[in-house]
Amino acid sequence: MKKVEIFDSTLRDGAQGENINFSAQDKFNIMKALDEFGVDYIEAGNPSSNPKDVEFFKMASEYEFKNAKLVAFGSTRRKGISAEEDANVRALAGANTPIVSIFGKSWDMHVTEIIKTTLEENLQMITDTIKYFVSQGKEVFFDAEHYFDGFKNNEKYALEVVKTAEAAGASRIVLCDTNGGCFPDEIFEITKKTIEALKTPVGIHCHNDMDCAVANSISAVKAGALQIQGTFIGIGERCGNANLSSIIPSLCLKQGYECEKIKNLSALTKTARYIAEVSNVILSDNKPYVGKSAFAHKGGMHVDGVNKNPKSFEHIPPELVGNERNFLLSEVSGRTVILSKLSAIAPELTKDSPETKEIIELLKEKEYKGYQYEAAEASFELLVKKHLKKLSSFFEIEYFKVIGEKSGEKQNPSSAIVKVKVGDRNEIAADEGDGPVNALDKALRTALKIFFPELDEVRLIDYKVRVVDSSSATAAMVRVLIETTDGKDVWTTVGASTDIINASVQALVDSIEYKLMKTR
Amino acid sequence: MKKVEIFDSTLRDGAQGENINFSAQDKFNIMKALDEFGVDYIEAGNPSSNPKDVEFFKMASEYEFKNAKLVAFGSTRRKGISAEEDANVRALAGANTPIVSIFGKSWDMHVTEIIKTTLEENLQMITDTIKYFVSQGKEVFFDAEHYFDGFKNNEKYALEVVKTAEAAGASRIVLCDTNGGCFPDEIFEITKKTIEALKTPVGIHCHNDMDCAVANSISAVKAGALQIQGTFIGIGERCGNANLSSIIPSLCLKQGYECEKIKNLSALTKTARYIAEVSNVILSDNKPYVGKSAFAHKGGMHVDGVNKNPKSFEHIPPELVGNERNFLLSEVSGRTVILSKLSAIAPELTKDSPETKEIIELLKEKEYKGYQYEAAEASFELLVKKHLKKLSSFFEIEYFKVIGEKSGEKQNPSSAIVKVKVGDRNEIAADEGDGPVNALDKALRTALKIFFPELDEVRLIDYKVRVVDSSSATAAMVRVLIETTDGKDVWTTVGASTDIINASVQALVDSIEYKLMKTR
Repeated sequence: MKKVEIFDSTLRDGAQGENINFSAQDKFNIMKALDEFGVDYIEAGNPSSNPKDVEFFKMASEYEFKNAKLVAFGSTRRKGISAEEDANVRALAGANTPIVSIFGKSWDMHVTEIIKTTLEENLQMITDTIKYFVSQGKEVFFDAEHYFDGFKNNEKYALEVVKTAEAAGASRIVLCDTNGGCFPDEIFEITKKTIEALKTPVGIHCHNDMDCAVANSISAVKAGALQIQGTFIGIGERCGNANLSSIIPSLCLKQGYECEKIKNLSALTKTARYIAEVSNVILSDNKPYVGKSAFAHKGGMHVDGVNKNPKSFEHIPPELVGNERNFLLSEVSGRTVILSKLSAIAPELTKDSPETKEIIELLKEKEYKGYQYEAAEASFELLVKKHLKKLSSFFEIEYFKVIGEKSGEKQNPSSAIVKVKVGDRNEIAADEGDGPVNALDKALRTALKIFFPELDEVRLIDYKVRVVDSSSATAAMVRVLIETTDGKDVWTTVGASTDIINASVQALVDSIEYKLMKTR
Repeated sequence: MKKVEIFDSTLRDGAQGENINFSAQDKFNIMKALDEFGVDYIEAGNPSSNPKDVEFFKMASEYEFKNAKLVAFGSTRRKGISAEEDANVRALAGANTPIVSIFGKSWDMHVTEIIKTTLEENLQMITDTIKYFVSQGKEVFFDAEHYFDGFKNNEKYALEVVKTAEAAGASRIVLCDTNGGCFPDEIFEITKKTIEALKTPVGIHCHNDMDCAVANSISAVKAGALQIQGTFIGIGERCGNANLSSIIPSLCLKQGYECEKIKNLSALTKTARYIAEVSNVILSDNKPYVGKSAFAHKGGMHVDGVNKNPKSFEHIPPELVGNERNFLLSEVSGRTVILSKLSAIAPELTKDSPETKEIIELLKEKEYKGYQYEAAEASFELLVKKHLKKLSSFFEIEYFKVIGEKSGEKQNPSSAIVKVKVGDRNEIAADEGDGPVNALDKALRTALKIFFPELDEVRLIDYKVRVVDSSSATAAMVRVLIETTDGKDVWTTVGASTDIINASVQALVDSIEYKLMKTR
């Protein structure tokens, strides 16, 4: 088995992404998740850069790592002073981490135009800084910033930079495509030439500005790089860093590489989704390997193929990365999908049962009216169970009224009255809210909680509106999707109508009935 | 200049993505945007698969294409019957498109296990189907489904399949990595060997299951492929198709390729964002080239570097693709773009005018509140003109009330009362409609037509709702976009509020005021 090392920079380069704002506790939680998953190194920022990081490094120093080593990050000393005289360098040496990662310039243009010094002084800055950290007992990784652009512009100088870092005692030389502008074949060639010029193991650090960061990282590994730097879900400055949750399974499952500390690759999906949650980032459904749709099949022929042989439309079995296969319900999906969904709800039905045919017809009719059950499996389950008379409604809405009004600049809150019937008892409740739907939602819960106290645990977490046929303008059909949780499960329900209030009420009612079906 | 052809499948393979549900009008709008941008081919689905597509192909047949050719999509004939006897094949031949795209099996496992026929019969199905379409005067593109997996499993048979399609008269042989499980070096090698075995130009069709679809497509082009298939913003089954908005600029700006019909690459960002909007897909901020953060700089050293020389942290100048640089921690962001828009509305303003600064501040404040002017230039123009006191409101809404109600199964129409003030005259009108917004819309027009008879020409043609921060559930901020026409022009306006009625009224008022600004 060929070995690779995983270096995660979610907490450092990832934090440079737009809208990413980690608290010290967020950083600690992500660090723990990465350590448990089994990455080799966790780069966590500069311990002296701000009070949040001071706090984080203090928390981290009390944590016992299972797998990973913690890395602090900084730059070479400033020009014109010694390493010891540079306050940032001294602060970094004081960090309680076994390893420091130091970046330095390797593109001659950057040396002369950006930090405005001589090519010789830049080499001296690299030597001094690395030697200083080595003398302090640290292991040093050297990040050659803009290495590939530098190599293309001045091959000789770029090689001189990395050889200088090697001579000064760095234990890894990391080649960075900082601007994300290189293609896999360029990365391969330059990495290969560089490895031939060095004895020290090489790392690769790519950015995704051309959608090539994953392919670039893999081609560097094929050229002989040992260490892969990236962020677990691909967050980072501009278009993000190389996405480790794509690179790791591709190398381990398809290229015969081993990440020694990853004992359980099937924790991949869970770990990626957890990190997204803590980072407050929406993980795209179509994210390779770990997204909700990564193994979702919609076309009838694809569904049929996967049923005959999963290899026909899946490049790996989803369970290897802890994800799952999903057959989407839609007008183009065949009978097979519906059957596989039905079998979980009503195992007694076969494809020839008259009820199966009825349900398929019912589904078509509903989809024609604007409903969509692809993302609303809770509504689908209620629909089927009610059709099969396995379930009857827990409550009825006798009537509701909503009023919205505005006088001049003054907007009153919307208000709603709802009368519900449970068995032979009635209850009327009213409430106000941000808009008519919110007012109705609140009034409905107030009325129902008297009968069903468990609704106290239920909380809406997502509300989506889609205008189905927008060309009828304000009289258009709208579809509402509501996502609900009770702290344990999450379920999605749907409503459709030309009236957004009515569509919302349908989805709200389903959301509540689904909870009651679980508890009663 | 080396040439490549762009083949967009947003309307066919893109429609297979989870949560993608195009109406016929959506498909038409996207088709127009792609045609105007300058793709060579637009694949739009199967004209006989469902009533929505029947309607779309009818609309498309009345449209005059500027650049693109429309392509209908289907499969080879079923086994055991002739091409003429296959109803799907006949329906496809009846489609009013110059080109048909036909997929067939090229992986032996799929032939024997999935469609369960012999390797010989599969070749015959390909020959018969292509010959039939050629005899009907169609140009035929042949999609070799699972070509790369097939080639790896049985090189001889895979080559036999594409040679058969060539002999039958296909004008393009498209190599598909249907499962998205191949790496760039594999794609390069296999594409190269295949091109050597054929005379017909070759295309490449990749999926993104390993985050490599863009790199894979580019490596096929480097191996000699002429046509690139993908979807404009990367949507599609499972993890999506190769993202054309990444591939096109990478090839044109960095690899010396020409896409003949793309006259204005700087329309890239606008086109991608428009297609995302119509598809109701959230375009990730970190999307390469076209995302909001693609040229956003957060780190202080990066901002400093870009100020000294943009090349230091940008692989291309953002304006080449119509995107913009953004410094996340500074106030200079977006000024250039805003200035270019301002110059059309108020040519007297320069970048140093105090009004310019005020408008930028106003815009930031509005965007913070959920407004978005990218797709709503009519609202932007009204905002600017009112701020510059070049325009005052034509009318005021003194108050409105809307009532929605439902009793048991009976849903009454929503009703609305509106009182407007024009000069010193008042008018009250009431109406009912499909939902509260439609009722308000009708009542408002009834009241205003007395003063402004030209509003009779005005008609809403599109109404979209987007939940901006969906995690606040039914109390979330919503943004409403309304598209209006008076038969000559089309304009879009925006409203934002936690109350959907209020957001809709803002967009309606802007829509009417924009018309009045044109006529008065």
